[in-house]
Amino acid sequence: MAAHDTERPLLSGPLEPGSRTKQNGSNKKRRYRRSKSAPLAEAVPSGADFPCSRVQRWDTIFGTIHPSFKTVAIYLSLYLGIGTISFYLVKNQIEGQKTNGVLDAVYFCVVTMTTVGYGDLVPGTVLTKLLACAFVFSGMALVGLILIKAADYLVEKQEILLVKAIHLHEKLGPSEILKDIEIHRAKYKCITIMFLLAVLIVSGTVFLYVVEKRDFVDAFYCVCSTITTLGYGDQSFSTISGRVFAVFWIITSTICLAQFFFYVAELNTENRQRALTKWVLCRRMTNVDLEAADLDEDGVVSAAEFVIYKLKEMGKITQEDVSLVLKEFDDLDVDQSGTLSVSDLTLAQSSPDEN
Amino acid sequence: MAAHDTERPLLSGPLEPGSRTKQNGSNKKRRYRRSKSAPLAEAVPSGADFPCSRVQRWDTIFGTIHPSFKTVAIYLSLYLGIGTISFYLVKNQIEGQKTNGVLDAVYFCVVTMTTVGYGDLVPGTVLTKLLACAFVFSGMALVGLILIKAADYLVEKQEILLVKAIHLHEKLGPSEILKDIEIHRAKYKCITIMFLLAVLIVSGTVFLYVVEKRDFVDAFYCVCSTITTLGYGDQSFSTISGRVFAVFWIITSTICLAQFFFYVAELNTENRQRALTKWVLCRRMTNVDLEAADLDEDGVVSAAEFVIYKLKEMGKITQEDVSLVLKEFDDLDVDQSGTLSVSDLTLAQSSPDEN
Repeated sequence: MAAHDTERPLLSGPLEPGSRTKQNGSNKKRRYRRSKSAPLAEAVPSGADFPCSRVQRWDTIFGTIHPSFKTVAIYLSLYLGIGTISFYLVKNQIEGQKTNGVLDAVYFCVVTMTTVGYGDLVPGTVLTKLLACAFVFSGMALVGLILIKAADYLVEKQEILLVKAIHLHEKLGPSEILKDIEIHRAKYKCITIMFLLAVLIVSGTVFLYVVEKRDFVDAFYCVCSTITTLGYGDQSFSTISGRVFAVFWIITSTICLAQFFFYVAELNTENRQRALTKWVLCRRMTNVDLEAADLDEDGVVSAAEFVIYKLKEMGKITQEDVSLVLKEFDDLDVDQSGTLSVSDLTLAQSSPDEN
Repeated sequence: MAAHDTERPLLSGPLEPGSRTKQNGSNKKRRYRRSKSAPLAEAVPSGADFPCSRVQRWDTIFGTIHPSFKTVAIYLSLYLGIGTISFYLVKNQIEGQKTNGVLDAVYFCVVTMTTVGYGDLVPGTVLTKLLACAFVFSGMALVGLILIKAADYLVEKQEILLVKAIHLHEKLGPSEILKDIEIHRAKYKCITIMFLLAVLIVSGTVFLYVVEKRDFVDAFYCVCSTITTLGYGDQSFSTISGRVFAVFWIITSTICLAQFFFYVAELNTENRQRALTKWVLCRRMTNVDLEAADLDEDGVVSAAEFVIYKLKEMGKITQEDVSLVLKEFDDLDVDQSGTLSVSDLTLAQSSPDEN
């Protein structure tokens, strides 16, 4: 079982000057690699070699974490298409302020999907009432599970432009800008979405004031009651051009406001996490901590053990996560040396009982 | 700088039988401690010793991750109290179906806060319109940032009862039940919230059918249009008893449905994360991986280094996290041995340049 081909010097033991395990005289200052290329999830190619046939392919698993524009476009078109056709077919069973048949159907569909529900058009029969119930639930699912993620992706893209603009005069390199974004992600997302929201609120108010001829307060009140999905219905879009504008504006603005509240919650979490990280890092290490951090029970804490202990304390990883990986480590460590070497890998991965 | 008081055997080096660094003959099979008491964030006492005065106290930082019932009650009472008084004072400026002055004010406040916005009561003047705008935004913030977290906490409590009921005949111990909950958290939350939603939908429909004398379809349609916050307004609560019921039922049911969609998204993420974990764990380790995982560049990968590499690959931690802790490690590792011992801690934490 034992392997003898560990070509490189084996220096993972403690190298204190007075220690009886002094090896190779390597008493030089050791600095850990900071910029080591981490195996980031995004960096794994989708066509990589998959030894486990039970597990799905990478792109199947991750294809929809940030749904592609194609996916979003297909779902949204399908929803609006089926909705428009359905409500157009039963247009005589819908009561209220009508303009153009197809436009009213799209408008009713959007007002229902976003849960604005003005009530300027309402279902008048059992069939249309049940249809509206089906469309509001599926609409909520579409907005909440797919559109909001697509919006998050768009905001992330805009965020980079924002941070670049902020640092325009500081001449930061791309990596420093990316690092700044990484650290203050939620903050920049909040700023970006607030800017977008301001644009949407102003454009909506101006539109209602100019095109639908409302007075200024009513226009602003209609905008607020729409983007929050309140939709009392005393103010809504009643002209043809108003409803065309509404179809696009309502989807965008309601998602933006929901996203804004989501980012505020995220910012809150981010600030808390930062405070915790700071607290954990500058907390005094006691001998009890040292003992608890010593994963392999060799009496000293290596850099990696220290990292795991501190990350657990920060709540970023759990004992469950660590145990799961340690089990895999035990399987790979064929010679039970407590470390993995090239020979361990060769032996473990060529043995017939490989799982 | 050097320390000599490392009492325990220093065995973190590789211990392969043929290796030239064989120490103390400890060639026994090494199994890593699985149940090691992890420094869980929750376990740190709030009155602990805080060496860094810059950092806030633990309970200040974490007091509102799951807001206490007191906090939630205070915010909700404040909101509803101020809302009710405001709308009661301007009750003559609100138009629509009225019942009792105070009740209508509470009802209008709840319908606005949850963004249901039936439109059976609508603000009729500039003042009330602007008041409604202010209350809908603050209401969304209250529901989205505070009430939904309180609801999450309640669902978590219910979840434990559910899992206990499921495993009633399997005679599992408390720790196994907790582990099952930990692994399938989102799944059990989904089941719990679906059960709650079903109860709320049935109770709402029955109430509208029996007390408000609607026909069955209208009752169900009103329930659907309310819990989704659609609120066209053609069906709403118009009697005194109906509005009393509505005040409690609307808050509960709208939060429940929002929570349901939130849990579905969480379940999706959980399943994805599980698939990724499985893929990362059974992926073949190459020599390139081994080289990349070797944090201290000693030619072999220790258990802790392996854990960090795999957790990075799973996306649970980032290189940024690791670098931050490594910097702290370098500061503590006074003798630059690459490992922390009791003497390192004593020296590092008593030195005057301690940060």
